[in-house]
Amino acid sequence: MLFRQLFDQETWTYSYLLADGRGREAVLIDPVLEHTDRYLQLIRELDLKLVFAIDTHVHADHVTALGSLRDQTECVTIMGDESKAACVSLKVKEGEKIRFGNHALDVLYTPGHTDDSYSFLLPDRVFTGDTLLIRSTGRTDFQNGNPEQSYDSIFNKLLRLPEDTAVFPAHDYKGWTTSTIGEEKRFNPRLQVADRRAYVDLMNDLKLPNPKFMDVAVPANLACGKSPAAA
Amino acid sequence: MLFRQLFDQETWTYSYLLADGRGREAVLIDPVLEHTDRYLQLIRELDLKLVFAIDTHVHADHVTALGSLRDQTECVTIMGDESKAACVSLKVKEGEKIRFGNHALDVLYTPGHTDDSYSFLLPDRVFTGDTLLIRSTGRTDFQNGNPEQSYDSIFNKLLRLPEDTAVFPAHDYKGWTTSTIGEEKRFNPRLQVADRRAYVDLMNDLKLPNPKFMDVAVPANLACGKSPAAA
Repeated sequence: MLFRQLFDQETWTYSYLLADGRGREAVLIDPVLEHTDRYLQLIRELDLKLVFAIDTHVHADHVTALGSLRDQTECVTIMGDESKAACVSLKVKEGEKIRFGNHALDVLYTPGHTDDSYSFLLPDRVFTGDTLLIRSTGRTDFQNGNPEQSYDSIFNKLLRLPEDTAVFPAHDYKGWTTSTIGEEKRFNPRLQVADRRAYVDLMNDLKLPNPKFMDVAVPANLACGKSPAAA
Repeated sequence: MLFRQLFDQETWTYSYLLADGRGREAVLIDPVLEHTDRYLQLIRELDLKLVFAIDTHVHADHVTALGSLRDQTECVTIMGDESKAACVSLKVKEGEKIRFGNHALDVLYTPGHTDDSYSFLLPDRVFTGDTLLIRSTGRTDFQNGNPEQSYDSIFNKLLRLPEDTAVFPAHDYKGWTTSTIGEEKRFNPRLQVADRRAYVDLMNDLKLPNPKFMDVAVPANLACGKSPAAA
């Protein structure tokens, strides 16, 4: 499998290009609008065919490239079935598989950061969006975020994956690019809590400012990154 | 092998942590001073022992963590034998090997960006410093840079590696994290030149401003990131 982690410096967002080395079918996870041309350059240079563009959830901090990629390729846009983004071509449910070439992403519903947060699993790695970050977890104070759901998604789904599963999140703010389930279990400071109640209290006490692009990004992303008026 | 790419947002620098999964011996390539504590955290959490900290060359854009890491661990600091940094514990020559656990980095002398630029090779990947970047090459207009040497290092050494060798540079300014020798051969715009003369002309015409931290970084790095006065 061909794999590339890509970074948006402006919003500290990681996007992921995955492709089957033989059939050349490719998937982009959490692409950022401003990088559309560079994604298309890389896809062309690597002789790939973009079949799916996936958002793990409706992002509040950057505008998605789902719409621009759909406009410029024949890719299918995907979000989870709890998403309110009516613009996507396909909504997937937990337990379904997204197949590209000889590979498949397993769909996991992992709400908590938002009520439409999904993770996508390969045999050796998981794309966790903003649900599980490296040594942190996604805030739960807007877009129907819910710390109880975050606890369940993390403790009862993600942390039950094999410990050597690589974790690839949608962001990191300290320059780390990946982790493992085992590392997060042991060293993620938010997960060293006595019980669900302690995690909920911790998350409710964070009191973070809203993301600076939120008022633009959420409506834009509900329209796949196209102008909401034009959606 | 355990492998982590790490990023410094301020100077767009990539650093690399490599370790042997059994013996737990670890190497850091091109570490950045400000991240010293985070490297030590990661090394501790992954239960590693830092044996070597290596700079590919005397950097002009950030201050190295070689000295701070040596102070806080028992690691050996390494640069190539053409380096003027008297502070390092060990200078390596082309053809030598840097062994950690069951792995070894092969030393390649790849001058051009500077006269003390080295690359470090594993069987499946090469750490190219600023010699070969993703779709670019390191500027050759200071620190005894030389576009003719850059041409030779790239065309006659790096591009002769197997095409599927992964390229891990010391920087990328567009959010790409890695490439391959085959990709750079075909798609790096600076390498699509008719001959050595055309490459030299191209590099001599770049007319770039100096890196903003250069007057601080170069003397500091000649002292392994410690205050030059105290070195």
